[in-house]
Amino acid sequence: MTAIASVTADTLRRYRRACDYLAVAMIYLKDNVLLREPLRPEHLKPRPLGHWGTCPGLTLVYSGLNGLIRRTAQRTLLVTGPGHGAPAIHANLWLEGTHAEYDDALTVDGAGLTELVRRFSWPGGFPSHLSPEVPGVIHEGGELGYALATAFGAALDDPGLMVACVIGDGEAETGPTAAAWHGPKFSGPRSGSVLPILHLNGYKISSPTIFESMSGEELRDYFTGCGWSPRIVDVRDVDDPDTVLAEALDAAHRDLRTATPPMLVLRSKKGAGAPSVDPQGKPIEGTFNAHQVPVDPGDLELLERWLRSYRPEELFDADGTPFEDLLAVPPHGSLRMGVVPQANGGLLREPLPLPEIERFAVPVGAPGATDASATDLLGGWLAELMLRTAARRDFRVVCPDELRSNKLGALLDATPRAFTRSVPGYAEDLAVDGRVMEVLSEHLCQGWLQGYLLTGRHGLFPCYEAFVSIVDSMVNQYAKFLKMSGETPWRAPVSSLNYLLTSDGWRQEHNGYSHQGPGFINNVLTKRASVARIYLPPDANTLLETMRHCLGTTDLINVVIAGKQPSPQWLGADAARAHCRAGAGVWDWASTGGEPDVVLACAGTTPTVETLAAASLLRRRLRVRVVNVVDLLALSPPDRHPHGLSPDEFTRCFGERTPVVFGFHGYPSAVHEVLHGRPRPDRFHVHGYLEEGTTTTPFDLLARNRMSRYDLAADALTRTGGDPRDLLRERDALLAKAYRDGEDPEEFTGWRWTP
Amino acid sequence: MTAIASVTADTLRRYRRACDYLAVAMIYLKDNVLLREPLRPEHLKPRPLGHWGTCPGLTLVYSGLNGLIRRTAQRTLLVTGPGHGAPAIHANLWLEGTHAEYDDALTVDGAGLTELVRRFSWPGGFPSHLSPEVPGVIHEGGELGYALATAFGAALDDPGLMVACVIGDGEAETGPTAAAWHGPKFSGPRSGSVLPILHLNGYKISSPTIFESMSGEELRDYFTGCGWSPRIVDVRDVDDPDTVLAEALDAAHRDLRTATPPMLVLRSKKGAGAPSVDPQGKPIEGTFNAHQVPVDPGDLELLERWLRSYRPEELFDADGTPFEDLLAVPPHGSLRMGVVPQANGGLLREPLPLPEIERFAVPVGAPGATDASATDLLGGWLAELMLRTAARRDFRVVCPDELRSNKLGALLDATPRAFTRSVPGYAEDLAVDGRVMEVLSEHLCQGWLQGYLLTGRHGLFPCYEAFVSIVDSMVNQYAKFLKMSGETPWRAPVSSLNYLLTSDGWRQEHNGYSHQGPGFINNVLTKRASVARIYLPPDANTLLETMRHCLGTTDLINVVIAGKQPSPQWLGADAARAHCRAGAGVWDWASTGGEPDVVLACAGTTPTVETLAAASLLRRRLRVRVVNVVDLLALSPPDRHPHGLSPDEFTRCFGERTPVVFGFHGYPSAVHEVLHGRPRPDRFHVHGYLEEGTTTTPFDLLARNRMSRYDLAADALTRTGGDPRDLLRERDALLAKAYRDGEDPEEFTGWRWTP
Repeated sequence: MTAIASVTADTLRRYRRACDYLAVAMIYLKDNVLLREPLRPEHLKPRPLGHWGTCPGLTLVYSGLNGLIRRTAQRTLLVTGPGHGAPAIHANLWLEGTHAEYDDALTVDGAGLTELVRRFSWPGGFPSHLSPEVPGVIHEGGELGYALATAFGAALDDPGLMVACVIGDGEAETGPTAAAWHGPKFSGPRSGSVLPILHLNGYKISSPTIFESMSGEELRDYFTGCGWSPRIVDVRDVDDPDTVLAEALDAAHRDLRTATPPMLVLRSKKGAGAPSVDPQGKPIEGTFNAHQVPVDPGDLELLERWLRSYRPEELFDADGTPFEDLLAVPPHGSLRMGVVPQANGGLLREPLPLPEIERFAVPVGAPGATDASATDLLGGWLAELMLRTAARRDFRVVCPDELRSNKLGALLDATPRAFTRSVPGYAEDLAVDGRVMEVLSEHLCQGWLQGYLLTGRHGLFPCYEAFVSIVDSMVNQYAKFLKMSGETPWRAPVSSLNYLLTSDGWRQEHNGYSHQGPGFINNVLTKRASVARIYLPPDANTLLETMRHCLGTTDLINVVIAGKQPSPQWLGADAARAHCRAGAGVWDWASTGGEPDVVLACAGTTPTVETLAAASLLRRRLRVRVVNVVDLLALSPPDRHPHGLSPDEFTRCFGERTPVVFGFHGYPSAVHEVLHGRPRPDRFHVHGYLEEGTTTTPFDLLARNRMSRYDLAADALTRTGGDPRDLLRERDALLAKAYRDGEDPEEFTGWRWTP
Repeated sequence: MTAIASVTADTLRRYRRACDYLAVAMIYLKDNVLLREPLRPEHLKPRPLGHWGTCPGLTLVYSGLNGLIRRTAQRTLLVTGPGHGAPAIHANLWLEGTHAEYDDALTVDGAGLTELVRRFSWPGGFPSHLSPEVPGVIHEGGELGYALATAFGAALDDPGLMVACVIGDGEAETGPTAAAWHGPKFSGPRSGSVLPILHLNGYKISSPTIFESMSGEELRDYFTGCGWSPRIVDVRDVDDPDTVLAEALDAAHRDLRTATPPMLVLRSKKGAGAPSVDPQGKPIEGTFNAHQVPVDPGDLELLERWLRSYRPEELFDADGTPFEDLLAVPPHGSLRMGVVPQANGGLLREPLPLPEIERFAVPVGAPGATDASATDLLGGWLAELMLRTAARRDFRVVCPDELRSNKLGALLDATPRAFTRSVPGYAEDLAVDGRVMEVLSEHLCQGWLQGYLLTGRHGLFPCYEAFVSIVDSMVNQYAKFLKMSGETPWRAPVSSLNYLLTSDGWRQEHNGYSHQGPGFINNVLTKRASVARIYLPPDANTLLETMRHCLGTTDLINVVIAGKQPSPQWLGADAARAHCRAGAGVWDWASTGGEPDVVLACAGTTPTVETLAAASLLRRRLRVRVVNVVDLLALSPPDRHPHGLSPDEFTRCFGERTPVVFGFHGYPSAVHEVLHGRPRPDRFHVHGYLEEGTTTTPFDLLARNRMSRYDLAADALTRTGGDPRDLLRERDALLAKAYRDGEDPEEFTGWRWTP
């Protein structure tokens, strides 16, 4: 595809006038959208909604990028940080004909124009912010902070792609954005380029911004220090902003591949084109008062004057179709930023060549007879997956510098860590094109991975369990994005967002209280059932099987929690597969048989060990049934979650009236929550993390949270009328030894399951 | 207080040798801690725990700051970002005699030394990371990212204080740290100074760091761009690092008050002093291998050689008491960084002069007859509090640029927004010494406030409800800090951390789905009952009363959720006080009287309106009782939360078998969770946010989530055997109007409670 005939400066101005007009119209009008007659109150939307302030700048950028694409045929994806500037993006999408391709009602004529204007911020129409329902969008932008990291993720492993990323100067104040400026240090020559455009219009909702208050020299220093070649493009008082920006974009495009890549600081007037003051004398254009709906709809005359200042009759013909010169401004076909295939990445997605797990599984003869580190085994399997995708380069692992610490180091034999800077001192496993990305920022990991997944690739985010809550809010927003994507017919499914939470709290007895926190489960449980999955594989083979499953799924958030310490192995590969498919099941080999007095249930590596040890303590006193839960949402009633066990299956596991003592990995409340709607949930007595933590021994940590084998067994005895005092005495005697010796006694550490 | 006699370079080296020796000993030894005899395996802790890599650098800084304090009597608080470097801090605290003041067993002699070394990372002893149990500490540092913002918060409004803040180069990669470098733009001359010391030792756990990979020029550019005067202090290959650092600290101290304040980049060898290689040839000193426990305890000979390299016999006398010259190194009395009063800020805390609410309360005659914006009224009350603290300067409001948007603008009449930069364009309400801090970073707001509260002051954090989840993980860590503080006898209570969540999801119908998220409640519910409080005042006077209460409390996390839109007022000032004290209660005036067929319960501004409207719809068909819940945790059984209603009170509200239809502000799961342990919780049918959101009308948003008055009333009818179809038809007819008109119909918006 080649560049089409050049477009005159006048046409570009007219093009932006058209977009700006449409944006104002979207915010205010439901009728008379081309102002064919004098503006009357009944033409106005009853609730004018939208954000004007950033729109003129966004259109300037969009139109400038259109020009660059026309001249260079550069495949370009746009990530719009200020997602509240949706009217500008809609206007551009409509003029370039993207909207018409996705929706028959949004034709590039008067009917389509009217529909577009009406539909914006109208019940059942387009939301006031960008969203997955909008073509070309991989970033919502309502919660500010993540545009730049998302842009970097989208550019990875796609060397022909340029991702232009607009960052508002409000968003630039956020921490995640501030961290994301270091992206080029992790993005090598086999990846595409990111062109950040910091949109400096001076104001947030009502305050000036940090970056506005910086001098030109400070801005240059800051971005130079981050490794960029900054260029300040000030269009506040220039006659021909299109040409000024075009020159900057052309220069930037030439330099995309340099060691200090280009970035632009675009200084513009906030809400340029709005009236300079309102009738009460309040300044509008160029101030924070232009942020949202700048002119009170009651000031009908002023509003009409503002709308007519764009002279819509010069832009749209009698029918409402844009004049032909305007239609020549955007590029054509899949070069349009609304249609670039990466913006609907599911279309490009190829399923992963997932290795079979058998070769990597640990042989398990008698349950509990062998020990293994689950993540260590998984590391081997992931390394094989890395090798199988070496040519495709569509699988990445992001991690806050914890792969080795999480015993996933085998991955680094398959691909190094990505780092483009030379490191003078000693270092291991670094390369410019590594596909593992380690950075001490969970925000960057998440943002990069989101961009990578949404453009059609695959990935895994291993993280210390306690610190994944750092991205709680990003997960919240991503879950919303997935939910809306699922309701948007033309969006193709993307690979699931897979978390591997390891270094879990029960074995952070050494790092202490700050490293103990299983609350991510609770947050993910607030998500829609169509999106959220939580797995707690109890050993290595179930982890392999779980991860193999998750990496094949789409449009989900899969949370997998697994241990890294060597621990007893319960299920061989076949049994692991069957158990994972069921989601939960009775472990007959650990149960006494017969109708049980009590069900001992468990979910999670450590609780499973404690529960089996509790079963050992109890089996001469009670009939016990041991149930292990891999898929936490199997506990939910099937009408509340698609993974819920059928009532019959649930009863086979938990009976109908039998007391259940449940050893759970996380906060007990999470189990109570998923059980909601099951009959007689009050017979479930859940033990879990009670926020009792410090640096101590593993056994003490369990006992402090009433989750040790003795506590579980004692509870089971109490629930069945027995006397638990001897068990608790035994627990306390062991604790005394641990305090004396500084380590857990052999009675605890040397325990093995014996049938 | 004046500087004491100067200390020789040799003494400083010996002092650091002593600290480094102690740090290694803490990690490894339980016996023979002064190496009076050859090292044997039984002298070693069974589980050596701790992080060596950052310790020598931390001690260099601590000792350098000691010198600065000796020379200048500068009151100095130290915030240690690398909290895993606790051994270094403990060593310094012991040598300066702080430990001995807080704990009789930690005397500055051989017995105290032995106890200190043994107690570190031992069950029941000191955690491996800094924690509230350690004197001088206001920051835990386990979850990296928040040290610098905390330091800025601590320095606010304390012009005589210098807060030195060590930031590890791992931590420097985090977003919150990257944002925090802009702190001086918000901290004026009536505040103290922050002296950041970026500790560049090159490595995280196993990767090189971003900042290590930056050239000296890039580092200078970056920090100059942020507004600092950076000075790079490279001690990797100098003979006398103490003097090099002392000169830099003296120069920095002289320049603390300049417009571009000083910051230091300290380049040191990671784990300096450790063996350069281990017996297997693995490099240690100066590499990431020095991060944690660098020498395998099995390499006893190497470990002994390492320990003896510090020549402990030259540092401690036969008894184990440090030689006298070492004891002259730290400053004395309250100038010691372990004893500076700000580190135990509760001691300095003065209760706020809280205004009575009566003057600000809205008069309420008949319930529901008048409308008011709850946050608007609260703004007036807060403004009065601001005025009353104008001289004390110990109350601040932090907010992500949302005060006006949240109708709290009255505050800005009492004090401007803090901003130290001149703003060339139009701006309102800015001043260098304003006590409102608006920045588009929830992380900064939270970090600043934590530092402010922990040094004995008061504050409020108003935030859009959906975006407060950005600080979920900070709240997690702060809740842990408070829990541990409460268990530390010498810690005085600090003011509670108060959130005002407004712009709540039910009225974010205009901003759309990304702005709708009540999950913060669920996260706070995972916290200890001793720490967490959640309030949902239904109107203005209950909000005033709730906030007056919260601002008087200590050591809590108070979450207050309130509306900003004008809405019906239910309770006068007296009734509001009684209702808030009870936590929950029957609204007789809204109930039909008699034994109810159904209880209509509600919590939150919007659900209360919908519930009362549902009661109106129902009262000719059913006997209904209306119960309003202000204090969510009143629903908890009293053995699970101190605010739990007694069983009798609970029954008076909810009966024993009566079905309860509950209109809840947040996710229904939160109510189910707090009800856990109450009898027959399955009779509670909770309506709340179901993650059905977009830009639409308020009524449609309610209906999508089955929370409209019609849905509540229909559910109540269904639960009592009635037929809800006419109600649902009415709902759908109204929805059709809303979709047609783009606004909610008068039947919804014009509804008023009529008795």
